[in-house]
Amino acid sequence: MADDTFGRGKFPCLLILFQGLLLILFVVFVDYSKDVLPDAQNTLKINTDFPVFQDIHVLLLVGFGLLMTFLKKYGFSGLGYNFLICAVVMEWATLMQGFFEMENNKIQLDIDSMIKGDLAAVTILVSFGAVLGKTSSLQLLLMSFIEVIFYTINRTICTTYLQAVDPGGAVLVHAFGAYFGLTVARVLYNKNSVAHEKEASRYTSDLFATLGTIFLWVYWPSFNSILVQGVLRHRAVVNTYYAMAASCVTVFAFSSLVTKASKLSMVHIQNATLAGGVAVGTIASMIIHPWGAILLGMVGGIISTIGYKYIQPWLIRTLHIHDTCGVNSLHGMPGILAAIASIVSSGLAGFGQYKTSLYTVFPARSPVINSTQYLELVQFVPDARAGLGRTATEQAGYQCAALVMTLAVSSMGGLITGFIVKQSFFDPMTEDRMYDDLHYWEVCFYHFSIF
Amino acid sequence: MADDTFGRGKFPCLLILFQGLLLILFVVFVDYSKDVLPDAQNTLKINTDFPVFQDIHVLLLVGFGLLMTFLKKYGFSGLGYNFLICAVVMEWATLMQGFFEMENNKIQLDIDSMIKGDLAAVTILVSFGAVLGKTSSLQLLLMSFIEVIFYTINRTICTTYLQAVDPGGAVLVHAFGAYFGLTVARVLYNKNSVAHEKEASRYTSDLFATLGTIFLWVYWPSFNSILVQGVLRHRAVVNTYYAMAASCVTVFAFSSLVTKASKLSMVHIQNATLAGGVAVGTIASMIIHPWGAILLGMVGGIISTIGYKYIQPWLIRTLHIHDTCGVNSLHGMPGILAAIASIVSSGLAGFGQYKTSLYTVFPARSPVINSTQYLELVQFVPDARAGLGRTATEQAGYQCAALVMTLAVSSMGGLITGFIVKQSFFDPMTEDRMYDDLHYWEVCFYHFSIF
Amino acid sequence: MADDTFGRGKFPCLLILFQGLLLILFVVFVDYSKDVLPDAQNTLKINTDFPVFQDIHVLLLVGFGLLMTFLKKYGFSGLGYNFLICAVVMEWATLMQGFFEMENNKIQLDIDSMIKGDLAAVTILVSFGAVLGKTSSLQLLLMSFIEVIFYTINRTICTTYLQAVDPGGAVLVHAFGAYFGLTVARVLYNKNSVAHEKEASRYTSDLFATLGTIFLWVYWPSFNSILVQGVLRHRAVVNTYYAMAASCVTVFAFSSLVTKASKLSMVHIQNATLAGGVAVGTIASMIIHPWGAILLGMVGGIISTIGYKYIQPWLIRTLHIHDTCGVNSLHGMPGILAAIASIVSSGLAGFGQYKTSLYTVFPARSPVINSTQYLELVQFVPDARAGLGRTATEQAGYQCAALVMTLAVSSMGGLITGFIVKQSFFDPMTEDRMYDDLHYWEVCFYHFSIF
Repeated sequence: MADDTFGRGKFPCLLILFQGLLLILFVVFVDYSKDVLPDAQNTLKINTDFPVFQDIHVLLLVGFGLLMTFLKKYGFSGLGYNFLICAVVMEWATLMQGFFEMENNKIQLDIDSMIKGDLAAVTILVSFGAVLGKTSSLQLLLMSFIEVIFYTINRTICTTYLQAVDPGGAVLVHAFGAYFGLTVARVLYNKNSVAHEKEASRYTSDLFATLGTIFLWVYWPSFNSILVQGVLRHRAVVNTYYAMAASCVTVFAFSSLVTKASKLSMVHIQNATLAGGVAVGTIASMIIHPWGAILLGMVGGIISTIGYKYIQPWLIRTLHIHDTCGVNSLHGMPGILAAIASIVSSGLAGFGQYKTSLYTVFPARSPVINSTQYLELVQFVPDARAGLGRTATEQAGYQCAALVMTLAVSSMGGLITGFIVKQSFFDPMTEDRMYDDLHYWEVCFYHFSIF
Repeated sequence: MADDTFGRGKFPCLLILFQGLLLILFVVFVDYSKDVLPDAQNTLKINTDFPVFQDIHVLLLVGFGLLMTFLKKYGFSGLGYNFLICAVVMEWATLMQGFFEMENNKIQLDIDSMIKGDLAAVTILVSFGAVLGKTSSLQLLLMSFIEVIFYTINRTICTTYLQAVDPGGAVLVHAFGAYFGLTVARVLYNKNSVAHEKEASRYTSDLFATLGTIFLWVYWPSFNSILVQGVLRHRAVVNTYYAMAASCVTVFAFSSLVTKASKLSMVHIQNATLAGGVAVGTIASMIIHPWGAILLGMVGGIISTIGYKYIQPWLIRTLHIHDTCGVNSLHGMPGILAAIASIVSSGLAGFGQYKTSLYTVFPARSPVINSTQYLELVQFVPDARAGLGRTATEQAGYQCAALVMTLAVSSMGGLITGFIVKQSFFDPMTEDRMYDDLHYWEVCFYHFSIF
Repeated sequence: MADDTFGRGKFPCLLILFQGLLLILFVVFVDYSKDVLPDAQNTLKINTDFPVFQDIHVLLLVGFGLLMTFLKKYGFSGLGYNFLICAVVMEWATLMQGFFEMENNKIQLDIDSMIKGDLAAVTILVSFGAVLGKTSSLQLLLMSFIEVIFYTINRTICTTYLQAVDPGGAVLVHAFGAYFGLTVARVLYNKNSVAHEKEASRYTSDLFATLGTIFLWVYWPSFNSILVQGVLRHRAVVNTYYAMAASCVTVFAFSSLVTKASKLSMVHIQNATLAGGVAVGTIASMIIHPWGAILLGMVGGIISTIGYKYIQPWLIRTLHIHDTCGVNSLHGMPGILAAIASIVSSGLAGFGQYKTSLYTVFPARSPVINSTQYLELVQFVPDARAGLGRTATEQAGYQCAALVMTLAVSSMGGLITGFIVKQSFFDPMTEDRMYDDLHYWEVCFYHFSIF
């Protein structure tokens, strides 16, 4: 018991050390970008992007936070750890991603850094879903720390080197987070954590979680369009809106089809309804026509519902992957679907349809040009940049490569992370403490004691 | 029992068939508008309208959704069916309204379609409130399907042919939804559904519902201003803000006045506080002066509180209209008040006060002009269009006509719909299943079963 | 009992009288500003400021509202009175502040009035937190009425006469509200209200309150940046984002450090995590570098956690100040910290770093100029105004003066208010009614009774 108290003192001490380290790193490496300083050139960005950013900020903290409260005795932890992970990752991912993009030896902060910080946080929250209720706060902290590193490396490879496109992060965020989390869950597998008596919801916790779902669903168009601008944002918003609608309708139907007595299952409604947003994420800004968005939303919803009903139990029985929130069904498989859709859609994308926006949607398809050609081109395409001159098929290949890379890096990263956090130093959880706030939170206390 | 299971299998089957039909209709009839395609002219719309759209999207899904959870055992259904209705209507109303506005044989999708889809969804949600807890999911689905058709027809008549103005949809959305729902409720009247033991709230369900109210209240300025731009939006926002404030204060006072022991009644706080937003809806963008907005907010709040206290029980006793959420008091009567206010306000509107904005606020009052006159006019009013040259009095008359039309179409539509959904094929509810999630949702389940 | 009923009838009667008075005052003194009328010059303001306004509107109504629901039996009152106070103050503060800024004998309404109304409401909500559960609705109403007057006077002195800057309102809103509320609480002190058996949370009420915290946390960047534009807004957003993150992480660590068995305390997570937003409020738009924001966030979080753990109980024991929500720890001390930071930061601010934005951030530092000089200057600084030609040190002094003034006015105002509301006419609460909805709300009622 004395040991236990000592052991648990590790969490606050390491956390405050980490925050201190972050402060030092910010002092040394970070400053404002020129858009946040006097004489900024781009003064409109804050007006056009901040409202959309705030939407995804709510999506993260409120949407994911509430979704994590579905367990009957684990609401404080679900909402609270979600909060902590967001805050930690917002700072840490700013640094990690900044290291790859320094100018004048400084990481340049502006609203783009905040957007990147939030997207990284989503990734870690997805992984958190896979291990919800089965890890100590120390394990979660360490997992967040390591995952951000892998996430940043993978994101940099896929976007900077492979030049794959993924505005809604279906692959780089959702699939990455899902398969990272699943591998961690595999390593931490404990058969007593499965069908645990506390791994259940109650009426009120299900209401809170469904409210979280609805916040996620409502703000998903902002999520899928935050990284693009103008017409591309408009298209991403429209595609996502209709994909979400189709996904929701389809999941209500399939949930009723596969559930006893044709009832609706709260698990499906809380989760699978969102799969359409993931499924359309990678191609949200492409010209897929509204029916393409609806079709993807439907397929995403079906896959996800089937995932919850049949594949999730199968993963436990067969592969010993116990995925508490079912992130494979909500983020993993729909993310792969999104990647496949992007391979098809990129392979079909031509100048006839996209006109000069082809080079905005797929920067790597911009022609390889010399400076004379550039001066000519820039007359027609103001933001033209010399590209790699890729063909549609090549771009499709790179989209495929990004998927493979993401699956490899996330599984490998999750495996390594799992083995590290499993060490007894990081307080792995015993079964009697799982899915229960009691051991980590002051529950039902008097507001304060004064004597 | 076998029959029952078969009967309930109808819901998912019809729902998936409907979603399949929607997909086919989208393939055949729907494409992007040119603002979502390369070479879009209007690239600013997404920046100015998307944040306001997201506000009303939250209002719909979160605000209405939570408001519907006030019943102690019907929270899953309230929140869940609200979600499903939104998604179904978003797709279906896009088609229905699009059919009236096709260009090049295609319905043109952009953010305006999303706004229209959401406004249609609000209408159906209002009607849903009148029958909450007393209809099967199949009946709800059918009601949504039919109501969208009537709503679209009425909207088209009132705005395109009558050229009545109603930026906040107090008549076309709220009053329409209310009287459609009330008529359906009348046809489905079952005396055992009244004062049913489960038609009650509990502490937590009332908290959820009040939270919904607050989301509705907060985002109402966006709702009343989404259809107008620039200065008109500014005015609509200011008017709505002060009307909402006055409505809230007035309802707290009147609730305490009419409630036993001067207590506050949660029903009033949850509902009547919003009446000011409806009451000011039709004239939100008119020059009614801030005190006009406050006066309307007060009158709306009083009418609505009295409605909940006295008229709602009277409707049940006398007309056998059992209106679960009291939509007559929240949406119906304040909507009629808004129409009356718009008749007065339109009748007083003159060029002296509105200057050239007269033709933006009331397009039908634009002069009938020939092309030479147009070229002159357009120098002063850049977006001038040839109008109908209506006088103030004529416009007032058409505002009145729109109210009458709306009341007629909604009651007629509700009557027809009521008789259709009452058929046994659509699984009318028996009393033992009313106001209870148990029969339609997996309640308090273990998260999943694996063996 | 008859007396009691009569006594309680005072609340609705006075409230409706007050709303009537507001209506008359609006008729006489209030009209639209020219930006809400035809021929408005500034048509962009609604597009750039309205989304940010809606964020703070949610922060007020939803964030504060839910935070006030943490008491197990006082959720209706927490959420409901928060709602009422907002609405009352929105109208009343519009008038009070308008009286100081009339043009052509009219108060000019536009979105700026709404922003000012909301900021005033936050101030009163902070004070409400100090007396939560211990005042009658009549006392609350009167407190709101009086506090708005003191708030407006203090704000006018500090910004117009002292020309101190405080974009996030850490001093003028948070510190003012806190010390006003604390003084009121001191005057109303009743030893039986302390450690009252109902002054406790329960599982669900803590979830609701934490959700409120998260809404506050998410929208705080909007709150700190609503009063500034362009680059200044961008900087305020970035600074606040990182300060909030650092604050959250630090509080999780310190909460675990100071709580028994290294558990996390819900009180700290619900409140102290927000202190970083207050601490950075006054200097949010200054060039403090990202590490400055993080440092302030950390210090704010530490001070606040220590405040909840040690200072709040000490205040009760020693000074008999019973502060229900701990507003001294969340708003008071972090507000003072913000003021100190602003003294330092203003004292260091120079033209080299701020360039011409120096005069936007600190208007009083603009040079004293004659009209010829003005014509020259305006070529480089389009919105140049003749200022007071203050030095950095002088500005620092005025920042200090604003803090002292705020502490003086708020304490004095609170003292006076406390003695007034303590009078028996305003229904002071007896212990048996404290922290309990039962006596003021219809609780767990049937939805309505018809016979």
